[in-house]
Amino acid sequence: MTIETKSRTDVELVQSVGDDDGIVHAARISLAHDRSVVEAKERKGLINYLMAHKHGTPFEHNSITFRVHAPLFEFREWMRHRVQSYNEQSGRYSKFEPVFYLPGSDRPLVNVGTSAKPVLAPAQRTVIKASQARMVESFHESWAAYEELLALGVAKEVARNVLPVAVYSTMYATTNLRGWLHFLGLRTSEENATFQGHPQWEIEQAALDIERELAKLFPDTLEAFNANGRVAP
Amino acid sequence: MTIETKSRTDVELVQSVGDDDGIVHAARISLAHDRSVVEAKERKGLINYLMAHKHGTPFEHNSITFRVHAPLFEFREWMRHRVQSYNEQSGRYSKFEPVFYLPGSDRPLVNVGTSAKPVLAPAQRTVIKASQARMVESFHESWAAYEELLALGVAKEVARNVLPVAVYSTMYATTNLRGWLHFLGLRTSEENATFQGHPQWEIEQAALDIERELAKLFPDTLEAFNANGRVAP
Amino acid sequence: MTIETKSRTDVELVQSVGDDDGIVHAARISLAHDRSVVEAKERKGLINYLMAHKHGTPFEHNSITFRVHAPLFEFREWMRHRVQSYNEQSGRYSKFEPVFYLPGSDRPLVNVGTSAKPVLAPAQRTVIKASQARMVESFHESWAAYEELLALGVAKEVARNVLPVAVYSTMYATTNLRGWLHFLGLRTSEENATFQGHPQWEIEQAALDIERELAKLFPDTLEAFNANGRVAP
Amino acid sequence: MTIETKSRTDVELVQSVGDDDGIVHAARISLAHDRSVVEAKERKGLINYLMAHKHGTPFEHNSITFRVHAPLFEFREWMRHRVQSYNEQSGRYSKFEPVFYLPGSDRPLVNVGTSAKPVLAPAQRTVIKASQARMVESFHESWAAYEELLALGVAKEVARNVLPVAVYSTMYATTNLRGWLHFLGLRTSEENATFQGHPQWEIEQAALDIERELAKLFPDTLEAFNANGRVAP
Repeated sequence: MTIETKSRTDVELVQSVGDDDGIVHAARISLAHDRSVVEAKERKGLINYLMAHKHGTPFEHNSITFRVHAPLFEFREWMRHRVQSYNEQSGRYSKFEPVFYLPGSDRPLVNVGTSAKPVLAPAQRTVIKASQARMVESFHESWAAYEELLALGVAKEVARNVLPVAVYSTMYATTNLRGWLHFLGLRTSEENATFQGHPQWEIEQAALDIERELAKLFPDTLEAFNANGRVAP
Repeated sequence: MTIETKSRTDVELVQSVGDDDGIVHAARISLAHDRSVVEAKERKGLINYLMAHKHGTPFEHNSITFRVHAPLFEFREWMRHRVQSYNEQSGRYSKFEPVFYLPGSDRPLVNVGTSAKPVLAPAQRTVIKASQARMVESFHESWAAYEELLALGVAKEVARNVLPVAVYSTMYATTNLRGWLHFLGLRTSEENATFQGHPQWEIEQAALDIERELAKLFPDTLEAFNANGRVAP
Repeated sequence: MTIETKSRTDVELVQSVGDDDGIVHAARISLAHDRSVVEAKERKGLINYLMAHKHGTPFEHNSITFRVHAPLFEFREWMRHRVQSYNEQSGRYSKFEPVFYLPGSDRPLVNVGTSAKPVLAPAQRTVIKASQARMVESFHESWAAYEELLALGVAKEVARNVLPVAVYSTMYATTNLRGWLHFLGLRTSEENATFQGHPQWEIEQAALDIERELAKLFPDTLEAFNANGRVAP
Repeated sequence: MTIETKSRTDVELVQSVGDDDGIVHAARISLAHDRSVVEAKERKGLINYLMAHKHGTPFEHNSITFRVHAPLFEFREWMRHRVQSYNEQSGRYSKFEPVFYLPGSDRPLVNVGTSAKPVLAPAQRTVIKASQARMVESFHESWAAYEELLALGVAKEVARNVLPVAVYSTMYATTNLRGWLHFLGLRTSEENATFQGHPQWEIEQAALDIERELAKLFPDTLEAFNANGRVAP
C-alpha cells in the first residue's frame, strides 16, 4: 500500500470578475457620477481613501473563486470565515485519496512561546527527521485501518473516522475582495500590519498565495491595503 | 421649476461571472471529479436535482451586479435583503434629482383585500387621474421646500427631510445566484410558486426584469427554479 | 388637521442575554477550561486582550434587542447594517402616524465643509427659525396629500408615496454585542477613535443612547472598546 | 496508555433569551400594535401563519447558545452553517483529550444505497465487532503518535496532524431561532418534512437533542415547524 505526502497547499484561481475601476464606480455612485472615466491617479487616491477610512462596501461588487487542495485541519480554520462560499469534496460520498500533509523542512516545528501564545521556531534536524518518520508511520497505519474498514463493508462516512486531520481534501472557495482582505488580515502576520494575525503556518502560506493572485487582479487595492496597516475595510 | 415623473424601475446588468457549468463543477467537487466535461443533459439533470433538494451552495460561486434606478420606498424594501452588497447615491453628499415615482395607469391602486393582507385592483379612471394630480402637486411642493431649504444654507442631509419616498435614487446591488433566487422567491408572486410572495408591485416589476437577465446568464438554473416551485435552494 | 413634530430618536432596551463573564467563558473554551470561576481582574484583562487583538467571536454569544422610533431617513442608514435583525412597522399594512422629524435647535444645520466631506455647524437663529417653519409647512402639505389620497380610495402602499423621509416609524433591531460594537464604530465620531466615523447627527444620538445601555450590560467590554480606539473586534 | 471512547454528542443548553410571545411582538410591529396582550390562540395562529408563509424575521429576535461536545468530523459539518457563532477548543493552544468517537451498536454501518446517495443499514454483529476493534486499535496508534510527537518537542498545532477526525472537541454554538430551524431542516430527516435532509447519523442525533430543547423554550414555534413540513421560515 502506498501513500503520498505533500507539504503545501495548492491554491488555483478559478475565475474572477471586477477590477480596481469597478471599486471606483461603486464608490462614486454616492456622489451620483459613477460612470465618468477613471484616471489612474484618481483611482489610486480614492481607493486609498476608502481603505484608510474603512469604507468597505465598494470592495464587494466583485467575486474571486479559488480551488484549494489542503489538509483537513487547514479547512477547519478556513471555513470559520463565514462570508465565503464553500463546496468541498465529501468524505461521505467519495473515498479519500491517500495524500497526507507532512511538514516540510522549512516549517517551524517547536514552540518557543507559551501555550496560549505559541511562537514557532525551527527544530533540530534530528527532531525533524524523527517527527516526519513518526507521522508517516501513523499515516500508513490510519490508511490501512480505513481500507480495512471499507473492506469490511463499513460505509465511507463511518470508515473515515480513523483518518487523521492531515488528509487532503479539495474545495472551491468564493467571496468578494472585501471578504478576501479580511481573510488576509487574519491569516497573515506581516510586520506592517496594525493588527497582527497569528495564523498557523500552513494557512498563512495559502493566504500569501491568494494575496499574490489578488495583487494581479486588483493592484491598486492591494497596494492600499499594505499602505494602511493591512486592515480590511 | 420643473420636476420629472417616472413610473418604473430601471435595472441594468453591470457585470457577471459564472454560468450553469460552474454550478455543476462546484457540485461535483463533492464527488471529487469536478473537472470532467459537462454534457448538456447531465447539467440539466444535476441542476434540477440540486434545486429540488435545496442544495444551495453550488449556486454561490458566481456574482451578478445590477445598477438600479428606483424610488426610495422600493430601496427600503430591497435593502432588507442582507446577503446583497449595496452602494447607493448619498443624499448627504449629493443633491437629489427632481425625479419622482408616479404610479402608471397599469399599476393597481385600490385595496380590495384587508389591511393586513392587501389585494390590489385597478382603480376607476377618475381616481387614477385625481390621485396622479394630487401626487404631482405634492411632489412640486416638496421639491420647492427642498430647494428653499438649500437656498437658506441648510445642509443637504437636513434639507432632504422634506423629500418624499417617491424620489428616485441609484444603487449598485450585487449578490450571487443563490441570493438572487431568494430575492425572486420573495419579490415575485407567480402562480407556480410553492410559497407565494406578496411583493409590492414596483419591486416585483424590477424582480421580473432581473429574472429575465438571469435567465439569459443561467438558463438551466432558472428553468429548474420554475420547475421546482420557485423555492430558492 | 394636526401633525406632531419630534426632534429625537427613541431607543428602548427590550431584552438582552449575556454578560462580560459569558465572553470570558466563550474565549476560554479555546484553552478547554471555560467553566472555572471568573475573577474580576482576569475578566478585565482577557476582554481587553480580545479587543486589542480583534478576536471577535467571543463577543457573539449574547443578544440585545432595541425598540427604535426614528424617522425613515435614519432607518435607511441603520438597515445597511446587515448583521442586525429587523422588524419594522409596515407602510403597506398600517397607516403612518402624523409624526415628523424636525431638527432641534441643538442640531447643526449648515455645511462648512465640502460636498463630499460635510462638516456641520450651527446655523444662525433666523435660519433655524425659517427652516423649521418651511419644514413644518411642507409636512402639513404632504400629510394632507396622504390623507386625501387615502380618502380617494388609494391603497396605503401607494398613498405613502408623498410622505417625506422625515416621517417616523418603529422597529425592533437585534444583534449580538460584536454587531453592536461595529454599529458604534461606524455611527459615532468620538475623538479617541482610531477610525473616526462620519455619521449623520441623528443616528449618532441613537448610537450614543445604545452605547449607554450596552455599558450597563457589558461594562468591561465597553471600557475595553474605548481603551482600544473603538475598533470593533 | 488509556484512551476513552464515546458514542454520542453532548448538547447542553447554556443560555437563551426570547419566547413565542416575543415572536408575536416582532411580527405585530408591522401593524404598529406590538405591545398589546398576547392571547394563546392568537399566538398559535400567528406563528403558524408566519411559518406557513415563510415570514422569517420575527423568529430572529432571540438567541440560544449550546455547548457541544462532539467529534471533529461532526464539527466540520456543523460549522458549514454560517449564521451561527462559534468558539471552539483550540488544538493549537491546548492538548486534545484522548476521547474518540466509536459508533455504537445502534449506529447503521453499511451503505445499501449508492455512492452519491448513501442509505445506511445495520451491519451484522461480526462486522460491528470487527470494525469497532479496528477503530479502537487505530485510535490507540494515533494517540501514541500524538504523544510521541509532543514528547519530541513538536508543537501541538503540528503534532495534532496525526489525530483522527474521531477525536472529540468542545464548542459554544449560538444563533437565533430562525438559524436553529434551518439547522434542523438540514440536519434531520423526519418523514413529515417537505424537503427531507440526508444528514449523517451523528449530527442528526445532536439536532434532535437541540430540537427537544427548543420545543421547551418555543413550544408553539416548534409545533408550527412540524405542522408546516419542517421548512424553516
